[in-house]
Amino acid sequence: MNRTLSELAQLVRGTIVLPHVVDGSSERIDPNNILIDGTATIRNAQHGQLTFAKGELAWKFCRTTKASAVVVSEIARSERLPCIVVADPEAAFAELTKLFRPAVQRSSVGISPRANVSPLARIGDNVSIYPNAYVGDHVVIGNNTTIMPGVCIMERCQIGDNVTLFPNVTLYENTIVGDRCIVHAGVVLGAYGFGYRTENGRHQLSSQLGNVEIGEEVEIGANTTIDRGTYDSTRIGSGTKIDNQVMIGHNCHIGKHNLLCSQVGIAGSCTTGDYVIMAGQVGIGDHIDIGEHVILGAKAGVMHSIEPKQHYLGIPATPIREQMQIMASTQKLPELRKQIGRLTKVVEEMTHNEVADENQATPTSNNRKAA
Amino acid sequence: MNRTLSELAQLVRGTIVLPHVVDGSSERIDPNNILIDGTATIRNAQHGQLTFAKGELAWKFCRTTKASAVVVSEIARSERLPCIVVADPEAAFAELTKLFRPAVQRSSVGISPRANVSPLARIGDNVSIYPNAYVGDHVVIGNNTTIMPGVCIMERCQIGDNVTLFPNVTLYENTIVGDRCIVHAGVVLGAYGFGYRTENGRHQLSSQLGNVEIGEEVEIGANTTIDRGTYDSTRIGSGTKIDNQVMIGHNCHIGKHNLLCSQVGIAGSCTTGDYVIMAGQVGIGDHIDIGEHVILGAKAGVMHSIEPKQHYLGIPATPIREQMQIMASTQKLPELRKQIGRLTKVVEEMTHNEVADENQATPTSNNRKAA
Amino acid sequence: MNRTLSELAQLVRGTIVLPHVVDGSSERIDPNNILIDGTATIRNAQHGQLTFAKGELAWKFCRTTKASAVVVSEIARSERLPCIVVADPEAAFAELTKLFRPAVQRSSVGISPRANVSPLARIGDNVSIYPNAYVGDHVVIGNNTTIMPGVCIMERCQIGDNVTLFPNVTLYENTIVGDRCIVHAGVVLGAYGFGYRTENGRHQLSSQLGNVEIGEEVEIGANTTIDRGTYDSTRIGSGTKIDNQVMIGHNCHIGKHNLLCSQVGIAGSCTTGDYVIMAGQVGIGDHIDIGEHVILGAKAGVMHSIEPKQHYLGIPATPIREQMQIMASTQKLPELRKQIGRLTKVVEEMTHNEVADENQATPTSNNRKAA
Repeated sequence: MNRTLSELAQLVRGTIVLPHVVDGSSERIDPNNILIDGTATIRNAQHGQLTFAKGELAWKFCRTTKASAVVVSEIARSERLPCIVVADPEAAFAELTKLFRPAVQRSSVGISPRANVSPLARIGDNVSIYPNAYVGDHVVIGNNTTIMPGVCIMERCQIGDNVTLFPNVTLYENTIVGDRCIVHAGVVLGAYGFGYRTENGRHQLSSQLGNVEIGEEVEIGANTTIDRGTYDSTRIGSGTKIDNQVMIGHNCHIGKHNLLCSQVGIAGSCTTGDYVIMAGQVGIGDHIDIGEHVILGAKAGVMHSIEPKQHYLGIPATPIREQMQIMASTQKLPELRKQIGRLTKVVEEMTHNEVADENQATPTSNNRKAA
Repeated sequence: MNRTLSELAQLVRGTIVLPHVVDGSSERIDPNNILIDGTATIRNAQHGQLTFAKGELAWKFCRTTKASAVVVSEIARSERLPCIVVADPEAAFAELTKLFRPAVQRSSVGISPRANVSPLARIGDNVSIYPNAYVGDHVVIGNNTTIMPGVCIMERCQIGDNVTLFPNVTLYENTIVGDRCIVHAGVVLGAYGFGYRTENGRHQLSSQLGNVEIGEEVEIGANTTIDRGTYDSTRIGSGTKIDNQVMIGHNCHIGKHNLLCSQVGIAGSCTTGDYVIMAGQVGIGDHIDIGEHVILGAKAGVMHSIEPKQHYLGIPATPIREQMQIMASTQKLPELRKQIGRLTKVVEEMTHNEVADENQATPTSNNRKAA
Repeated sequence: MNRTLSELAQLVRGTIVLPHVVDGSSERIDPNNILIDGTATIRNAQHGQLTFAKGELAWKFCRTTKASAVVVSEIARSERLPCIVVADPEAAFAELTKLFRPAVQRSSVGISPRANVSPLARIGDNVSIYPNAYVGDHVVIGNNTTIMPGVCIMERCQIGDNVTLFPNVTLYENTIVGDRCIVHAGVVLGAYGFGYRTENGRHQLSSQLGNVEIGEEVEIGANTTIDRGTYDSTRIGSGTKIDNQVMIGHNCHIGKHNLLCSQVGIAGSCTTGDYVIMAGQVGIGDHIDIGEHVILGAKAGVMHSIEPKQHYLGIPATPIREQMQIMASTQKLPELRKQIGRLTKVVEEMTHNEVADENQATPTSNNRKAA
């Protein structure tokens, strides 16, 4: 399917701006003659495709992209390419992308005769349950919810309205999932918490009487695991988004609108305030409280609670300003070490004495001058 | 369901102690009038609920909990709340919690006609196999074992007695699982080891002739993966407990009664002694031996074998005493760097010379005095 | 099954060398009398088993192994054990291992009536689709491909020839998997990318119009997740091998013949060249380009793009030579700190002045001399 640049600009109510410095020939470009057969991001776009640019990084690629045209914001800086100028380039690009590649619309499939649904379950209206899904006794499922193949929902779970459970998700008994949640493939909610009491050299599993409770509009990434509470609930606040392969331990209370990136691990009994952001591979020890609006940089290792609105980084996690200085100094450490050796030598020569206390040998002994 | 504090105390053979300093009115509290309608942990408990306190952290919350009563050990320190005093508060609390929220008792479901069980498999007595489970040829399953929906057990696996395989577990061929093991949802045992031989620029997969062998009373957390041995077995010792999202590479021999926390990664051909503990996100390089009773702190990166009974931390992992000093010094590094700059300046002024060797410029050149 | 050492040597066209220094009695050993009943790696081998030795580490174990014989390369160094000498000991050992423990040959099972295959799917010749697998509308599957139990292939996916999808794999719609790929259990390809636009305090999911495209001969380890592109494809180059529990974010383009070890996490929109190696638990920030033939050491945290052929290590990742010096110096830091304290004290005594600038107190105040 081909569309002209003019057509596309019209669809998103954009203005076409043509390159004005193309060795005098740019006047002849006619946007009705620029044919677009698809869209792609700026690094991947090929001849014939439309792309978009937003932010410094994108502008860099504008000079080298193979795209035939680019959607940009009002301050256009691309002089090489025909542009569609709009207020929000990404939104316009998304709209035009759907022209060429429509989003998947899953129609309701009803309850497949090949699904295993307990007669004791209560199923809402317009629910899709795919083949090979399992719905246990006393489960409640709200309206317009989709349960994909291989999903297992154990006894007494409660699933809200407009929820999507992607394939092979497992919900242990009593799990609660709020309205409009998206739970991706392979997620496990409600497995046993990792708590043991060691008696006579054997690790005895602690009580597993709690459950997992997910608020509304939560998204949970593929293969993420959230363990049940020991006695009550592990809770995820509404609006929180969790990436793939995140681990949240038993008894945690995660606040609202958090963003937890991939491979984050949160040990048992932690809390976070609202709007906390954790970058990839962050680890949090147990019984730690993270205040609202805290940001934790990638791979941070948090050993103590953190006050609201702080930005931490490093292992152990430290306020980012300090951590950046620590990292910069650490990079210089081999040079500093040599510098200390030289200083020691000079001072020893001045004082005709070793710079060492009486109780231990000088650590920089290879720099030592024979007295 | 409501119970009086008296009733609850009687059930766990505890003694009731009432707050004695409540502005003179405490005499009038009657434990027969204190109604309890549920239990919760100390941070989550609401009015009407019973909680328990154990350890310093819990005591801190005793002062602020909304609970109506608390189970404590003999040395009661809560002066605000009615207490049930027992020798083991957590055990008593667990018992009382079951009153209000009974643990799930899964009754045997037999072998579902919707399960796929090979006629060549040998199934013990009182085994439950749920719909959508798959049991391959020559698989042997012991007595009282539960195979939940979506579990796939490939050819020639051997599963012991009283084992639970939670939903969507995959056992590759020849996997052995001992008695009383608990394998949580999404676990994969016996996938191919990550070993390649690069020939003419292509990575050729090494032999995959081994299997995975799990001892008795092992618990394996959700989405954990344990790869098969190249030629023989990857082994997990009896009594070892493994948290979610742990990765154990091919040919490893994990000892007995280990505790491996979430997101630990152990590369190929490692061994651990008995009673090893690894905190979250620890990584172990390949061909490393960890002695018995070793403890590895969170995020440790182990590059060399470790003798028994050591406690290591850090990247690279270092004895914890040293590592704590290293971490403390590293936090001070930006200050130390300035200190070195000042020292250099003072010494240079004294000697009228630069503190530098002949071969390279002074690293702290911004502190350098023009000679 | 027993085989004599002579028989085994003959099968791999090897030469038998017997120990020559066994207190004068070695002459009497007859390889026709040495019975072998199995094979095992050098650390695990028991009496009666054959093992092999390759590399320094193996040689170390040669002195202590319980094996009854060992396959070695031409330069034999085992004086204790009967040897089979061949050019490639591991290849010979693998061949002999198959004698005792044949590799699993999965015969084609056809399309199980208990599989759920859309009538709109197009299935090649000699394809096996196991029970409980799900194949959606307009899916295309090549010849000789195996789809194991619990696999879910959503609409419009394209799977090549000779592909194996192990149990409980999930492919979201439009995923493309090239010929001869091996996808292990629990893998999720094509889940939504973790991209949000925060509007009025709510995180709005970005477009999810792209897909995942896997080249040929790619192996993907158990429970690994690869997210779909925002607008176009997340791509994995042919010949690349990915270990278990790896996370690859949306829009990434991974080159050919990469080796990505377990628990590596790569954020969105990264690229790698060909032949990149990442060790376990490496993390890569978003929009980062890794040049061809780059090696990243275990747990490295990459914050900037890296030129081809570099070897990096550490957090933040640094050229390995520098990083090794930094790590060595960091280990010495507590000693260096004391050294700086002593130097300061000596210099202060010489100058009768504190070594500090006017604006701040001396950081090493505990070493300070009272003026």
